[in-house]
Amino acid sequence: MGTIANHPKVNLTKNRTFGQAIGSDLKETFFPDNPFGGFKKLSPGLRVWYCLQYYIPILEWGPKYTFSYFRSDLLAGLTIASLAIPQGISYARLAGLPPIIGLYSSFVPPLIYAVFGSSKNLAVGTVAAASLLLASLIQSGDDITYAANPELYINLFFTAAFFTGVMQAALGFLRLGILIDFLSRSTITGFMGGTACIIILQQMKGMLGMTHFTTKTDLISVLHAIFHNRHEWKWQSFVLGICFLLFLLLSKHLKEKMPKLFWVSAIAPLLVVVLGGLFAFLVKGEDHGIPIVGELKKGLNPISIGHLTFQGKHLSVALKAGVLSGFLALAEGIAVGRSLAMLKDEQIDGNKEMIAYGLMNIAGSFTSCYLTTGPFSKSAVNYHAGCKTQFSNVVMSICIMLVLLFLAPLFKFTPLVALSTIIIVAMIGLIEIHEFKRLFKVDKFDFIVCMSAFIGVLMFTMVIGLSVSVGLSLIRALIYVARPKTCKLGNIPGTDLYRDVKQYTGTSDMPGVLVLQLGSPIYFANAGYLRERISRWVENEPNNRGDKNDEDLQFVVLEMGGVTAIDNSGIGMLFEVQKILEKKGIKIAMTNPRQEVVEKLVAAEFVKSLGEEWIFVSIKDAIYAWSYKLQESSNKTEEV
Amino acid sequence: MGTIANHPKVNLTKNRTFGQAIGSDLKETFFPDNPFGGFKKLSPGLRVWYCLQYYIPILEWGPKYTFSYFRSDLLAGLTIASLAIPQGISYARLAGLPPIIGLYSSFVPPLIYAVFGSSKNLAVGTVAAASLLLASLIQSGDDITYAANPELYINLFFTAAFFTGVMQAALGFLRLGILIDFLSRSTITGFMGGTACIIILQQMKGMLGMTHFTTKTDLISVLHAIFHNRHEWKWQSFVLGICFLLFLLLSKHLKEKMPKLFWVSAIAPLLVVVLGGLFAFLVKGEDHGIPIVGELKKGLNPISIGHLTFQGKHLSVALKAGVLSGFLALAEGIAVGRSLAMLKDEQIDGNKEMIAYGLMNIAGSFTSCYLTTGPFSKSAVNYHAGCKTQFSNVVMSICIMLVLLFLAPLFKFTPLVALSTIIIVAMIGLIEIHEFKRLFKVDKFDFIVCMSAFIGVLMFTMVIGLSVSVGLSLIRALIYVARPKTCKLGNIPGTDLYRDVKQYTGTSDMPGVLVLQLGSPIYFANAGYLRERISRWVENEPNNRGDKNDEDLQFVVLEMGGVTAIDNSGIGMLFEVQKILEKKGIKIAMTNPRQEVVEKLVAAEFVKSLGEEWIFVSIKDAIYAWSYKLQESSNKTEEV
Repeated sequence: MGTIANHPKVNLTKNRTFGQAIGSDLKETFFPDNPFGGFKKLSPGLRVWYCLQYYIPILEWGPKYTFSYFRSDLLAGLTIASLAIPQGISYARLAGLPPIIGLYSSFVPPLIYAVFGSSKNLAVGTVAAASLLLASLIQSGDDITYAANPELYINLFFTAAFFTGVMQAALGFLRLGILIDFLSRSTITGFMGGTACIIILQQMKGMLGMTHFTTKTDLISVLHAIFHNRHEWKWQSFVLGICFLLFLLLSKHLKEKMPKLFWVSAIAPLLVVVLGGLFAFLVKGEDHGIPIVGELKKGLNPISIGHLTFQGKHLSVALKAGVLSGFLALAEGIAVGRSLAMLKDEQIDGNKEMIAYGLMNIAGSFTSCYLTTGPFSKSAVNYHAGCKTQFSNVVMSICIMLVLLFLAPLFKFTPLVALSTIIIVAMIGLIEIHEFKRLFKVDKFDFIVCMSAFIGVLMFTMVIGLSVSVGLSLIRALIYVARPKTCKLGNIPGTDLYRDVKQYTGTSDMPGVLVLQLGSPIYFANAGYLRERISRWVENEPNNRGDKNDEDLQFVVLEMGGVTAIDNSGIGMLFEVQKILEKKGIKIAMTNPRQEVVEKLVAAEFVKSLGEEWIFVSIKDAIYAWSYKLQESSNKTEEV
Repeated sequence: MGTIANHPKVNLTKNRTFGQAIGSDLKETFFPDNPFGGFKKLSPGLRVWYCLQYYIPILEWGPKYTFSYFRSDLLAGLTIASLAIPQGISYARLAGLPPIIGLYSSFVPPLIYAVFGSSKNLAVGTVAAASLLLASLIQSGDDITYAANPELYINLFFTAAFFTGVMQAALGFLRLGILIDFLSRSTITGFMGGTACIIILQQMKGMLGMTHFTTKTDLISVLHAIFHNRHEWKWQSFVLGICFLLFLLLSKHLKEKMPKLFWVSAIAPLLVVVLGGLFAFLVKGEDHGIPIVGELKKGLNPISIGHLTFQGKHLSVALKAGVLSGFLALAEGIAVGRSLAMLKDEQIDGNKEMIAYGLMNIAGSFTSCYLTTGPFSKSAVNYHAGCKTQFSNVVMSICIMLVLLFLAPLFKFTPLVALSTIIIVAMIGLIEIHEFKRLFKVDKFDFIVCMSAFIGVLMFTMVIGLSVSVGLSLIRALIYVARPKTCKLGNIPGTDLYRDVKQYTGTSDMPGVLVLQLGSPIYFANAGYLRERISRWVENEPNNRGDKNDEDLQFVVLEMGGVTAIDNSGIGMLFEVQKILEKKGIKIAMTNPRQEVVEKLVAAEFVKSLGEEWIFVSIKDAIYAWSYKLQESSNKTEEV
């Protein structure tokens, strides 16, 4: 090996202690964003202060708040408040709750979020999909409807919100943001699309002024409910609905054409509610086929902490509903926060956001609110209205407070059909046909994951759609893990590069040498497969079973650059491969193993069994060493 | 880019069709061993014949069978038969079944395996761990004991064996051998160790000649049962037991010292049974504190196909017991088959083995046998006795048939304590303390996985131990997936190599350039993490927020050689990273993307957005192109 002594070598002695290794792994798993990274240089007092600032972002942005920020936040806050009123009422009705609870939910949670939240663009409020999911889980879990037992039904929503909050805060404190990573973009696209379709169909109840409807959420049941009760259809309601729909769609179209006029589409829903209410009041709509919302009590959120229901029978329903809808709400909120932050080149900390969401839902559950998160529509309006900080949520909250204190009874006359049209228009944007098409083009499996969520929600239940889709994603992840890609490398002529022979044409091999790239962690789930696969690569080489000649396979190089980790089963596999190949008279070498892998291979004495001199930094070195050895032995033969 | 035109380029136009891509993925997932790979050149008739040979290996080795093989197989078969009798009786007692069922189970299944099995070394029979697992599942699931309802208890075992067989055969036909890959070596080591400890403690019943005992399998219950009924202890039984134990351990020790005398330890158990029986017969042991096996009926296996119980109430118990114990049996059998095959440089096909196991268990369930597989002890004896083909199983089967027809009643006098000592000695070998130590040294997480199975089995139940351990393994696999390793690469001076700067000291950077290696599939589970991680790498670079100067980060190279796949979320992440970096005025390039990844990046138009000219085959090329561009622009500045 004398001639390659000057070449760089793989360091086989450097060995991190167990503490260092596990510490760095835990850090990457739970603190990928390294929040306290810059603290080491600071004094203890400053550290506490920065730590507080980390968990309570208002301490960071509050002191720097300026009047020019305030002006922007005021405008944005007023705009989202005008959206919060109709959306609050609509989504509460979607959840089967009294409309006032939707308004309550836009008062307390935004205040909490303004203190603890880290996103400067998020506008807090209720969301359609999670509202429907909650309703379907609570109704199906316990056979409880608002009609049969209004108090219990409402209390279960508060209890679910409490569990949502506890779970979200716990995930954040335990830094388990990693769990959200398993809800893939494709799953969410499909789920949202399916849910939007169902919600739109459900709004036919409001559009047609029907009084009887189903609480189920599958396509068949909803269509059946629409067409079975045709005698309940009211043309007055429908005509009014079409007018509102056209107005809302027009305002949306206007925004797309002239983005500066975004505020028209932002206040359009409130306009619809106000105009619809006036109209219904003037023509006494209720008596002419246009059902209205009905009595709304004046006054702020009543305290509901005493109403949380932890009795055995209902506990599991509330827990399940809270946890499932909480996950969904988290995924939506964090995705929205991240995409808006990206537009401003800011960063969002997922774990910190979870804590903020958790605290706001716990506080909400104590004050007659149900599940809130950062809905896309409201947050986008907030962003476009030029919000600068979390203070726009405070402005919205104060507006809602004023509405609750003084104006709530006026919304009594809001026609249900107006709410339905607002929901329909909001939902249309969630059915992303172009994204379905793009997925089909780019990645068929992602398309299947997306479609399984879409069709699952549409045809069965929301939970089925979500679980099948997440299950498929996980199976795919595990298959990636269990069936890693390997490939044969060849030399690109004129360079020192070794690349996949299938990908690059015209690569050249050295006779008798096989270079294999193993490109993933090697561990129990794929060790068996890799052993088979390496054997097959070896068997596919020419002549390796015939009489010995120069073309025979004599040397296998395993390129380990992509092997980021190895476990006990993986090391066992390497020993087995070595044994199998040595029986065939084939020498084995290893190039570019990573530090984590080297440590384990040394500890397991694989390096000893292989021979330290057969571990190289590059494939070129390995092949050079082999040629040198061949030459040496042929020289010896000649000498003899 | 003129100057690097001669350099190799990444092929951006090659695009496999969806069919080709999915076909190759499916093939790697389900046919990693490529069983029909060589068939293309053959005539249709030969193809059918080879296909039959593939599924019925006896058609392959049968015609080539020679007398010299027969001589070896006869000897091996006689040896394993002498082991099969005491083991069959012992393990049946462990399962709480009448001893004769253990003998039945060594008659039919080996015949079936000889036809369909592909391992030349496996000796079929019942196993201790699966016997105990079956007993604990059936007893706990339905509160059924042999004492209370012997017929039902036995029938549930047959039914469980039937389900085991169906499941195993189905897994094999569907080529789902991939599932077995998720039972890691560490899990099996821990599970076997824990089970062996419990089984040894349970044998205290036999050693002490006790009549009352627990059916539970946790340490506390078993110790309680031993010490609570101290008045049942019989010293006669214990003294006899110690004698047998010493004899068996001695014979084992002899084998280790002189491997050629393996047959002494192989027939030692039969000797213990025979001598023990003689002794008990002569001294009328039963009346003097030495309980015996009791009546054994003469005659071959009765047909049990009519006894399979598919009634709702018992169905789920039998199904669960069958599936769980079937998985365990498969994992043990296939591991044993593989390790023995490796010693002879042969290959075992896991999927084919599953079919053979499945068929033998289905046939077994029809003929009064319970779960069988390839136990380690028996198979190792078979191997050492020099078996050449599966025919040794036939020899064993014929011996057991003769025993069943003529000798069974003689085993009536076998003292229970003899069976207990046989089990104890077999189990001692399964507690691999040295393996625990090795795991602790090599891989702490594997050690935890192993210990969780060991302690779970010992302290709680076998199912808990198994599930916790498999669960931990899966979580680890998913964490690997969700938190892939990334690293910063630096140039090793004097070479074109770029390696991890933390692993290799003395690497050099080009100022203003950051080279990052992404080393795993990029997809939904890690896209969020990778985005954060890349941002952090970028932020950690010097000066990137200060005034612009030459040291500022201007160019980021993503080395993609280790990225074996990418999905929709992953592509979205790349777009986001590009957007974030471009906002900071940082150019991004990509080196060595793999074919699968290139296809998707082209389809998603990421390549277009990045610019084709910024995709390179090697890091060297990327840096060269960047230097060239810098020089060009500084030339321009000078010209101006």
